[in-house]
Amino acid sequence: MQRYPQGLGLLTDLYQITMAYGYWKAGKAETPSVFHWFYRKNPFKGDYLMACGLADFIEFCQNWAFLPDDIAYLATLEGNDGAPLFVPAFLDYLAELRFTGCIDAVEEGTLVFPHEPLMRVSAPLIQAQLLETALLCILNFQSLVATKAARVVDAARGDTILEFGLRRAQGIDGALSASRAAYIGGVDATSNVLAGRLFDIPVRGTHAHSWVMAFADEPTAFAAYAAAMPNNCVFLVDTYNTIEGVKNAIAVGHSLKAQGQQLKGIRLDSGDLADLSRKARQMLDEAGFNDTDIVASDDLNEYKIASLKDNKAAINVWGVGTQLVTAYDQPALGGVYKLAALFDEASQTWEHKMKLSETSIKVSTPGSLQLRRFSLTNGQPFGDMIWNSQDGEPPTALIACFDSRTVVAKEREYEDLLQPIFKNGTLVYARPSIHHSRARARAQVELYKKVNFALYPLGLEQTLHELKLRLIAQLRGQAM
Amino acid sequence: MQRYPQGLGLLTDLYQITMAYGYWKAGKAETPSVFHWFYRKNPFKGDYLMACGLADFIEFCQNWAFLPDDIAYLATLEGNDGAPLFVPAFLDYLAELRFTGCIDAVEEGTLVFPHEPLMRVSAPLIQAQLLETALLCILNFQSLVATKAARVVDAARGDTILEFGLRRAQGIDGALSASRAAYIGGVDATSNVLAGRLFDIPVRGTHAHSWVMAFADEPTAFAAYAAAMPNNCVFLVDTYNTIEGVKNAIAVGHSLKAQGQQLKGIRLDSGDLADLSRKARQMLDEAGFNDTDIVASDDLNEYKIASLKDNKAAINVWGVGTQLVTAYDQPALGGVYKLAALFDEASQTWEHKMKLSETSIKVSTPGSLQLRRFSLTNGQPFGDMIWNSQDGEPPTALIACFDSRTVVAKEREYEDLLQPIFKNGTLVYARPSIHHSRARARAQVELYKKVNFALYPLGLEQTLHELKLRLIAQLRGQAM
Repeated sequence: MQRYPQGLGLLTDLYQITMAYGYWKAGKAETPSVFHWFYRKNPFKGDYLMACGLADFIEFCQNWAFLPDDIAYLATLEGNDGAPLFVPAFLDYLAELRFTGCIDAVEEGTLVFPHEPLMRVSAPLIQAQLLETALLCILNFQSLVATKAARVVDAARGDTILEFGLRRAQGIDGALSASRAAYIGGVDATSNVLAGRLFDIPVRGTHAHSWVMAFADEPTAFAAYAAAMPNNCVFLVDTYNTIEGVKNAIAVGHSLKAQGQQLKGIRLDSGDLADLSRKARQMLDEAGFNDTDIVASDDLNEYKIASLKDNKAAINVWGVGTQLVTAYDQPALGGVYKLAALFDEASQTWEHKMKLSETSIKVSTPGSLQLRRFSLTNGQPFGDMIWNSQDGEPPTALIACFDSRTVVAKEREYEDLLQPIFKNGTLVYARPSIHHSRARARAQVELYKKVNFALYPLGLEQTLHELKLRLIAQLRGQAM
Repeated sequence: MQRYPQGLGLLTDLYQITMAYGYWKAGKAETPSVFHWFYRKNPFKGDYLMACGLADFIEFCQNWAFLPDDIAYLATLEGNDGAPLFVPAFLDYLAELRFTGCIDAVEEGTLVFPHEPLMRVSAPLIQAQLLETALLCILNFQSLVATKAARVVDAARGDTILEFGLRRAQGIDGALSASRAAYIGGVDATSNVLAGRLFDIPVRGTHAHSWVMAFADEPTAFAAYAAAMPNNCVFLVDTYNTIEGVKNAIAVGHSLKAQGQQLKGIRLDSGDLADLSRKARQMLDEAGFNDTDIVASDDLNEYKIASLKDNKAAINVWGVGTQLVTAYDQPALGGVYKLAALFDEASQTWEHKMKLSETSIKVSTPGSLQLRRFSLTNGQPFGDMIWNSQDGEPPTALIACFDSRTVVAKEREYEDLLQPIFKNGTLVYARPSIHHSRARARAQVELYKKVNFALYPLGLEQTLHELKLRLIAQLRGQAM
């Protein structure tokens, strides 16, 4: 199954295509432009976002095209006077269009903050515009779920997390994307077998209530499962009565042991999980099953897991489904993609662009931006600075201005986080494995554990800050 | 783009495949079984669910198979002792497996209630089990979004609703499924062009802020758009200042009029929408643009729309995105799929199955269920009764028992809502067009407008009710 097959040019808002047409008609289709993807507010009232989705967006760009069926469909669209929306010459142009621009982006598994440029698209205006909607769809959702997963992993304090969300996910790709992002964010395995195959994520699972119900009684059901698959026995013990279920699992556990196999775990799916897990742990330990996992599920989320840990639940494997894959408490990230610079053919210079807004948080930053992260010699992040790469190399000391606050620091180690991905349409980025991205995500969370987020300097390089203030003044004047 | 291509057998939880293996080993793979899809609680604290997703699930079943790559992947999976999870003969069996069962389901656009059987799968146990996860993924999400859309449409009291959600949707299929379901639920058009092509949904859109920013100033930008596409002019007026934007739109509107074209609309995307829309309406009317639409967007939802209507906002077209396509205030429907009957080869009779639970709302209903809806002679729904089709035809009078309450009514018109979809693997259902399903959804909402949901009788036919009580007593005894 190819998730982003050749085509998908129509996976966009109609207004992108009508604007594309307008640019084409106005002779601006090929004008060099710079757009950035960023977000304004951390999800889940948290301290960060975990960037995710780049590998999928790369695949999307590589296969991006308007196929003959797409063109034929666009030819059927009409305006309010019944005349076609698009002239045939434009549709011919679309049919030939491929991505020829440059993309720079933070790597998957990078911990990032509001207003930082996370992806920069430098491309002919028409291309950069047409890609917007799919870019946002892919990157916003996967970053949201990776962030949620990182938080769930933290809540479980080192325990194993299994992602069980397919049945309640938002469509089949909502599920697949979520499984991928959750794994990068730090979960250990998924129940989604297709995600396992497509992304090389470990898969886990044993049986459901229906298995128990399909047999005369629970002992028979457990014994039948153990007979079929003695090397994968996690028994769901709450179909009728949890404590009886644990007893029945232990009985089968003894016969597994006699065959040289092990009772891998029991799973609790209802009731008072803290109390039941402690009782189950005691019963298992007394019967000599000290290594048997206690898996819990039942609409779990980061908050319930933290509370169960506080209440000394004897659970060491957590199945998290709905609440993880839909990011239930905030099911969308408000990430945006804004025009920041446009090349002026007449003057052969870059014009800086920004959207003004009554709400200051919504004012975007102009230029062709890069994100520089400074760190202490021990690797601990020290502060982030956004600079305009059109202005040449910035000072190597952190000079970050954000509203009224200015932070200046001595020269330090730094890294520019936007990495080259595409150059003139050619992929120049060696995509890391999903396991590498997952390790990076975990390492980033660990690095930031010593950081006080409230005091972390995060702002614009001074020249850029001044440019932005000038441009605001200029635009406010113009709007009068 | 084929949304459910041949294959997708792996689009399931691993435990479905391990159980399938167990059934196969225990000689139960082909045992006839009956499962039902139902839900327990109305979403959005509402009065109903709008069933949706059937057409997609039909396509999934028709193409359902384990392809060679899937089989090869399953052969790599190992248990905790490092031995393969599955023997080759089982994988050969899976490779040959196709859906050969029967499915009965409520039609898309049917208004339904908690605990009612919405789909019945009567199939060899292994097939019914393997289909569970994808069934829930497809039907839960689309029903959730169709319900949300129906509520948004009601909130807008006859105004036009445009669905704008692609950029914040949960993956690309999260977006496509949502566009489809939202249209069936009653929205008028989508911005998602691919959804337009795939599902025959009207598409709408004109331009974004970036269009305005790409030109020297707003008047130039509007004029350039009108020059390119005079028959599709809805101007976004808030890039710099909304009132100035309306003036600029009106100026271009006059030149459109001079060409015999029309100013189709203006769009407000920020600020006090009630106040700004009233001012814009007055300005437009005074300039002779009485037919020009006022479109609003800005993170709208059913509650904000209702409040804006109450505050006499002069908006007649509503763009709803994120909050609709993610069903933001409840991003998952807890729909479930439970085993209800299993054929006993020894006694050649059906065994009734149910899952007991400490929580009475979680106790499922046994049998092979059908849903009968009674109505008054004017077509107004009068009550719903669940009956067991294994017990032969029930009385044609409504006898609905739910917990302690029993309702008996005189003979009335009725309709059995579970329609035959597949018979022994063959599709026997003539799929209606999406427009037909949308019309059905709207008609259902209208029919139920006169119904007092709190008093609407909804329960089990008497024989079934007694069977359920007997089975509960029996299982409680067994669990002791």
